[in-house]
Amino acid sequence: MTGISKKTRKNLMLFSGRVGRELAEEVAGLAGTGLVPTQIYDFANGEIFVRYEESVRGCDAFVIQSHAAPINEAIMEQLIMVDALKRASAKRISVVLPFYGYARQDKKHRGREPISARLVADLFKTAGADRLMAVDLHTDQIQGFFDGPVDHLMALPVLSAYVAREYADQQLTVVSPDAGRIKVAEHWSRRLGGAPLAFIHKTRDISRPNVSVANRVVGDVAGRVCIVVDDMIDTGGTIVNAAEACMAAGAAGVVIAATHAILSDPAAERLAASVATEVIVTNTLPLEPEKHFEKLTVLSVAPLIAEAIRAVFEDGSVTSLFDGRA
Amino acid sequence: MTGISKKTRKNLMLFSGRVGRELAEEVAGLAGTGLVPTQIYDFANGEIFVRYEESVRGCDAFVIQSHAAPINEAIMEQLIMVDALKRASAKRISVVLPFYGYARQDKKHRGREPISARLVADLFKTAGADRLMAVDLHTDQIQGFFDGPVDHLMALPVLSAYVAREYADQQLTVVSPDAGRIKVAEHWSRRLGGAPLAFIHKTRDISRPNVSVANRVVGDVAGRVCIVVDDMIDTGGTIVNAAEACMAAGAAGVVIAATHAILSDPAAERLAASVATEVIVTNTLPLEPEKHFEKLTVLSVAPLIAEAIRAVFEDGSVTSLFDGRA
Amino acid sequence: MTGISKKTRKNLMLFSGRVGRELAEEVAGLAGTGLVPTQIYDFANGEIFVRYEESVRGCDAFVIQSHAAPINEAIMEQLIMVDALKRASAKRISVVLPFYGYARQDKKHRGREPISARLVADLFKTAGADRLMAVDLHTDQIQGFFDGPVDHLMALPVLSAYVAREYADQQLTVVSPDAGRIKVAEHWSRRLGGAPLAFIHKTRDISRPNVSVANRVVGDVAGRVCIVVDDMIDTGGTIVNAAEACMAAGAAGVVIAATHAILSDPAAERLAASVATEVIVTNTLPLEPEKHFEKLTVLSVAPLIAEAIRAVFEDGSVTSLFDGRA
Amino acid sequence: MTGISKKTRKNLMLFSGRVGRELAEEVAGLAGTGLVPTQIYDFANGEIFVRYEESVRGCDAFVIQSHAAPINEAIMEQLIMVDALKRASAKRISVVLPFYGYARQDKKHRGREPISARLVADLFKTAGADRLMAVDLHTDQIQGFFDGPVDHLMALPVLSAYVAREYADQQLTVVSPDAGRIKVAEHWSRRLGGAPLAFIHKTRDISRPNVSVANRVVGDVAGRVCIVVDDMIDTGGTIVNAAEACMAAGAAGVVIAATHAILSDPAAERLAASVATEVIVTNTLPLEPEKHFEKLTVLSVAPLIAEAIRAVFEDGSVTSLFDGRA
Amino acid sequence: MTGISKKTRKNLMLFSGRVGRELAEEVAGLAGTGLVPTQIYDFANGEIFVRYEESVRGCDAFVIQSHAAPINEAIMEQLIMVDALKRASAKRISVVLPFYGYARQDKKHRGREPISARLVADLFKTAGADRLMAVDLHTDQIQGFFDGPVDHLMALPVLSAYVAREYADQQLTVVSPDAGRIKVAEHWSRRLGGAPLAFIHKTRDISRPNVSVANRVVGDVAGRVCIVVDDMIDTGGTIVNAAEACMAAGAAGVVIAATHAILSDPAAERLAASVATEVIVTNTLPLEPEKHFEKLTVLSVAPLIAEAIRAVFEDGSVTSLFDGRA
Amino acid sequence: MTGISKKTRKNLMLFSGRVGRELAEEVAGLAGTGLVPTQIYDFANGEIFVRYEESVRGCDAFVIQSHAAPINEAIMEQLIMVDALKRASAKRISVVLPFYGYARQDKKHRGREPISARLVADLFKTAGADRLMAVDLHTDQIQGFFDGPVDHLMALPVLSAYVAREYADQQLTVVSPDAGRIKVAEHWSRRLGGAPLAFIHKTRDISRPNVSVANRVVGDVAGRVCIVVDDMIDTGGTIVNAAEACMAAGAAGVVIAATHAILSDPAAERLAASVATEVIVTNTLPLEPEKHFEKLTVLSVAPLIAEAIRAVFEDGSVTSLFDGRA
Repeated sequence: MTGISKKTRKNLMLFSGRVGRELAEEVAGLAGTGLVPTQIYDFANGEIFVRYEESVRGCDAFVIQSHAAPINEAIMEQLIMVDALKRASAKRISVVLPFYGYARQDKKHRGREPISARLVADLFKTAGADRLMAVDLHTDQIQGFFDGPVDHLMALPVLSAYVAREYADQQLTVVSPDAGRIKVAEHWSRRLGGAPLAFIHKTRDISRPNVSVANRVVGDVAGRVCIVVDDMIDTGGTIVNAAEACMAAGAAGVVIAATHAILSDPAAERLAASVATEVIVTNTLPLEPEKHFEKLTVLSVAPLIAEAIRAVFEDGSVTSLFDGRA
Repeated sequence: MTGISKKTRKNLMLFSGRVGRELAEEVAGLAGTGLVPTQIYDFANGEIFVRYEESVRGCDAFVIQSHAAPINEAIMEQLIMVDALKRASAKRISVVLPFYGYARQDKKHRGREPISARLVADLFKTAGADRLMAVDLHTDQIQGFFDGPVDHLMALPVLSAYVAREYADQQLTVVSPDAGRIKVAEHWSRRLGGAPLAFIHKTRDISRPNVSVANRVVGDVAGRVCIVVDDMIDTGGTIVNAAEACMAAGAAGVVIAATHAILSDPAAERLAASVATEVIVTNTLPLEPEKHFEKLTVLSVAPLIAEAIRAVFEDGSVTSLFDGRA
Repeated sequence: MTGISKKTRKNLMLFSGRVGRELAEEVAGLAGTGLVPTQIYDFANGEIFVRYEESVRGCDAFVIQSHAAPINEAIMEQLIMVDALKRASAKRISVVLPFYGYARQDKKHRGREPISARLVADLFKTAGADRLMAVDLHTDQIQGFFDGPVDHLMALPVLSAYVAREYADQQLTVVSPDAGRIKVAEHWSRRLGGAPLAFIHKTRDISRPNVSVANRVVGDVAGRVCIVVDDMIDTGGTIVNAAEACMAAGAAGVVIAATHAILSDPAAERLAASVATEVIVTNTLPLEPEKHFEKLTVLSVAPLIAEAIRAVFEDGSVTSLFDGRA
Repeated sequence: MTGISKKTRKNLMLFSGRVGRELAEEVAGLAGTGLVPTQIYDFANGEIFVRYEESVRGCDAFVIQSHAAPINEAIMEQLIMVDALKRASAKRISVVLPFYGYARQDKKHRGREPISARLVADLFKTAGADRLMAVDLHTDQIQGFFDGPVDHLMALPVLSAYVAREYADQQLTVVSPDAGRIKVAEHWSRRLGGAPLAFIHKTRDISRPNVSVANRVVGDVAGRVCIVVDDMIDTGGTIVNAAEACMAAGAAGVVIAATHAILSDPAAERLAASVATEVIVTNTLPLEPEKHFEKLTVLSVAPLIAEAIRAVFEDGSVTSLFDGRA
Repeated sequence: MTGISKKTRKNLMLFSGRVGRELAEEVAGLAGTGLVPTQIYDFANGEIFVRYEESVRGCDAFVIQSHAAPINEAIMEQLIMVDALKRASAKRISVVLPFYGYARQDKKHRGREPISARLVADLFKTAGADRLMAVDLHTDQIQGFFDGPVDHLMALPVLSAYVAREYADQQLTVVSPDAGRIKVAEHWSRRLGGAPLAFIHKTRDISRPNVSVANRVVGDVAGRVCIVVDDMIDTGGTIVNAAEACMAAGAAGVVIAATHAILSDPAAERLAASVATEVIVTNTLPLEPEKHFEKLTVLSVAPLIAEAIRAVFEDGSVTSLFDGRA
Repeated sequence: MTGISKKTRKNLMLFSGRVGRELAEEVAGLAGTGLVPTQIYDFANGEIFVRYEESVRGCDAFVIQSHAAPINEAIMEQLIMVDALKRASAKRISVVLPFYGYARQDKKHRGREPISARLVADLFKTAGADRLMAVDLHTDQIQGFFDGPVDHLMALPVLSAYVAREYADQQLTVVSPDAGRIKVAEHWSRRLGGAPLAFIHKTRDISRPNVSVANRVVGDVAGRVCIVVDDMIDTGGTIVNAAEACMAAGAAGVVIAATHAILSDPAAERLAASVATEVIVTNTLPLEPEKHFEKLTVLSVAPLIAEAIRAVFEDGSVTSLFDGRA
């Protein structure tokens, strides 16, 4: 045969934008390498410029960026990073989203609205992404918005293992702050060895629509420590109200747990002032120092992401990592 | 200017496959036209053949087919119809799905599963569909699976108007058979002037996971007529159990209502034998004669679909038809 | 360089749907592996569910399914299998079609018809197929319907080697049942060491259109054993008539040979009752037990497919396998 | 409603490249307009430049170019014309191909060949073509190579009407020069009121492969005028040999008829020197003056194309124009 | 024919995001309509939400947004607006960009950089844009980045007509601040009746690379009023230096003119403090009040854009508007 | 795991069409292999046929063709070669363009023109190209026309090293024949250790538009050897005029240097008869023997291309090869 033959190697390279860089560095360290040195800066008018300082030709690239504020900049920056990788001959490009921006805009509530969660998936595809990796998507259907593989990682084992250890000697009840999200609570209950479930419903939802009376707790919480769980905390109103309802219903204590700590104002203050004795979140989103408060516990998803990246790179099975949900 | 100028007209044409043809004919009649004469038959080995018997050049085509058994044939037939329209120069092709097949496969529950609801959207796009119209999608996110406009029609007003009229003098409670689908019940409650809500949960879901005790009714049903509502009835197990739980909890009576009457065996028998005094469904799916039973009421969605098609054809607003959900 | 480097391996994995599974197992055995364990079942309403029970991440996947009855289910099932592989990060997906459904619908005979053979190619592309492998396509142009590599395997050497061996001491004539398909007969003749050719034409086709008199044999068959050949036998009418015409023209005997044994009713009865002394087909399509009859000989294409899969996996040349036609 | 409303008009505009411009002008005249004034010239190194001298915004454009020598320039020029129309906001672009270049390369005969007929379809799609119109495609399957509507016009009625008129008092037999193309002859026979058919086969094809003896006429030609028909005449060898075989078999005379007069050297000389008394072709390809010879008759397809363009523009049915084959 | 026929109308609708809304309103007024009422707001975490308050079904939509600071938000917002229009069945979507963000990133200067100007074009295409309209693109090649029609409007006639009127009695010289952008100056010169040209070059560029001596004026400026022209002013350093060089070379006065007034800090101060007696820009970008200074003149491009939108809507020729450059 | 595992190898294969084959052979030799044996010929009517004589399955293919006269044939031939590779399962296809045809048509100068340079990029993408490699693109923006990696090689070091060596003892000035292309001259100057720059402008461009007086040299050339540089020489008019202007301005001598020697008539005669003492070009375009003249020096870009191909094949960094511009 005419030609030249050669054994093939593959190279894993990790990249991070400027948002949530601390998490990316932790992931890189755990994966056993560093972040590829990259110039990123803004021009005077806010246009973002990116340049990689090492050859990326033929690499298996993972581009990590959390969609935190300023969220639209974070997304554009990551799109530009993907474009630069595509044009520089990266072999495969995986976009890693500890928090997937616009995930809540996953349907048209009424006519003439966008479906921005689908748009985001399409934008990454257009820029050159071959695959997505994300932690705790707001709804599972978002996996279907991307035309390609999506690795859906679960932070739940990280959070629940902490709770199981720290509250080992307590009588726990898992509480969902919203009837529509009981499934998350069920996953928690299973992880905590079958802890009872409860949830909050606004009275009008159940018996008297349009007459908003109060939050009512359904399930057995009296004398027990309630773990109020959700996928994200944005302004914190719903979850803090849920905590209060638990106490009003005779709970012995309340702990709040969620994966994504968006903590838009005034979430930090609300949580700090709430009846909850501990608020447990992960670092999928970077947390500004002023948003930390004493009873806040932040667990790291870096080991989870690092392990998944290694598995993807090595074509190993990662379903176990995803707790059967990917 | 060199050339020939001419005023433009547009032509609405309606097409139907062989599944659910009765509904299509009703829609055509209400829209003020007939179904375009079409040859459709199977070759000896089951391959489907389609040919339109009139010119479709430049038309605004609506292709109606319900995804009923044999469901995969129904889908392939509709894909082939769309292909034939594309190649025959139809100007715009809208796929009308009274029931959207594979809608329940809208996510990966575990690794290595398909997302067939997305696949179906992509297949129609590939065949040549410009837009989709569907009634009561299983989850709203499916709208985001199609890369183009989706008109999401709601059968709820049809069903609830019937109930409001027939049970005007009753004390009604709207009951959801599953905690995860309370939102459908909320829409019902609003339509029925603020009827109280209740829902069923399996005891293990709430207080003792893994110890399946019984279905428990949450909410006030004693002495009231319960309207148990869902988007579809497949084998009927869940909804019949819910009805029984209502009666056990002291309900004065139970009526079952759902949009899509899949009625896979043994649904018809189960429903006929159930405690429900009436089962109200729509004709989004054709119902074989042997699946009819005495207390079954079938309402027609044909007016809804016909009105939406006219509005789409005439570029009018149809959001009102969709009850704010499209 | 920042990053992690690793030697690359590739993994061949074989998958089969529920149609023609016996052939797939034979192929797997010959290729030196097994079929990947896969759950496939129908929901109550006929929707197909698929899940792979092993990680398929990074694999070189071959998905085998013959498009036999129920043919539309077979196609949908294979599309869903491809979708699941794409979403589970298979590296390359080859669709293996022992029989390519809808291959005869490869053009518009008249206006307003589909070109379903092209549609099928596009549907597989959309689902995620990178390449196709098929046995004896109805027309060679179908290769051009897929936007990517198509491996076109030929079963002819399998069939002709059998005939050459079994009828070594006979005076053979190769007969085409239709003037439009003489090229297949030419390939046979070459394989049989230059056996004479003949073909059947309906008299009206040659000298008196619209006056259908009889099938006439063109070529020398008197006193010779006729091998009547075609690419497929559907209902069997044409080929059985051809066999009779040969006998009427003085043939010493007739043998029928074809690649694809669709055998729609009443093909099996017709062939069993025909003047042919042997009917030779391959197993590209599964044959229900009741369609077997005494003089039927079924040869296996499994070695052909297995060899082609290995060659594709190993990037070897497979043109020799394709007898110069791929 | 906020906005401005206006009645819609549509404008038909015809464009022609530099190859086969005479036909395009005839078409434009018959369609009732002129060709849009267009600058087309070559730069010194052969790059083609195109500019339209009138606004084409919103027009329904038909771009006519025959793929005659220099054929690759003709194709590139037409692609560039389509690109310019797309960028200048033409509303719909139809590519009109009196002769479709590379149509004979519609399959891989052996491994590692292109399928150039599919490539040509894809190139036009990429440049911006919405639809194709072609006359007498070499194989019908080429319709399936384009992802969109293809109008397949038939020149046969033009040719056969001429023959029927000019040879009204003769006993005619329609002769196919090749067993593989008998279907064209069948169409002719039907048009000529059921004239008998015959065809030529090389003796080796029928009875002694590899021993090339002679061309044999199958069918009844003695004492009759033979109309030898094909879709195209390239170098003319096959068709001239067929004519001779007819005379050798006792024909009273031979007339040759074909749609596409490629007439590559030495076709014109061969035909002029042949036994045929008349050679009838159409003007789908431009004919250089030196290729004309006394017994050549050239019929125009301009009325056919003009009528089809008008029908497409006006969304009328054109299946009748296509003789049931589009 | 089966079906319903109706005359077609088309509806022009104008939309604006939150950036540069004043210009959009002026355009709408001149076009003879208003902006379509639209809800746009940010969620707590910065995600943008959009909803149109009128039906947009079937409309010819023009979505105006200038890419001013915060530029990435402006782009994301416009993408989301386009997505919502696509899903709400707008018939055609034109994106109007008074200033095209990232236009300067139109090539890779070195390896491993993005080509963000191409990425932006692709993102709009993906979201659903059918066409782009932009004012004074940084390089003409950007037209080729979008796969579809691009209307390239020129603000030059607006600026030059003002200068011609205001400085009618002056001896003018047109000056380019950079040798690489002389073509813009040539257009100016032509518009000003053949005013002489000059340009600035840094001495090292011409005679002593690497020895940066000074800005040198090439051309005749002594005793004349210099019009220093460019496409945009970002931080203003280059153009202010050019103005100074003109004065140093004996100019009687300097006027600065540019289309896009980005005016990133400290441009406003620099310009205010410069030797220029007037700075003339357009309103393609919104100008915060604190960036206004006494000698700044802002001309409106609204009439230009409004006229182009009307011409596009009515399919008239707009080349005249584009001064022969579109 | 079920399946078969195997180490991966990759194979470099080089292909060449019929235009510029000499260069391709030189590249292959330097890369350490030969060109893959390939049949390429024209059918009688000019259609091109291609077939590879070795298996190309899984190879890393580089297809070299220079876009020289007949340029449209060269492009079509290369497109067909790419199609054949795609269909024969090449793993990755890189199109190597020593000279990129239609590069000068990179924008619309006026309305209703094509952007043929973008069209060419899209045609190669459609045919199956994964990446492009080109030498000295006419404008850098063309990189952005291809949706994928583009390796932009620079011939400048080849040319400038020769000049530096041959004219080591001369006082050199680098001269641009056109104000719009001074950047090329700047690169030269840097390579020649900071040689002074000059350029030619037509007097009307600078001071009196529309009054064409003369070519004026800007910069210091008196008594120095001028190196007049450009990216390509087509008919040679501009560059020969520039050379004369240098001599008129007192230059001690003139040398002409350019990458692409298109040399359309009468370039060779003009250059031979010009005042230049040497004309230095590269072999990116094949040069017919009759276009050679005594003072012409042709340098080879084969080492540059060979090195880049090896680097791409081996995933090494090639930015150094590209002089920081890729």
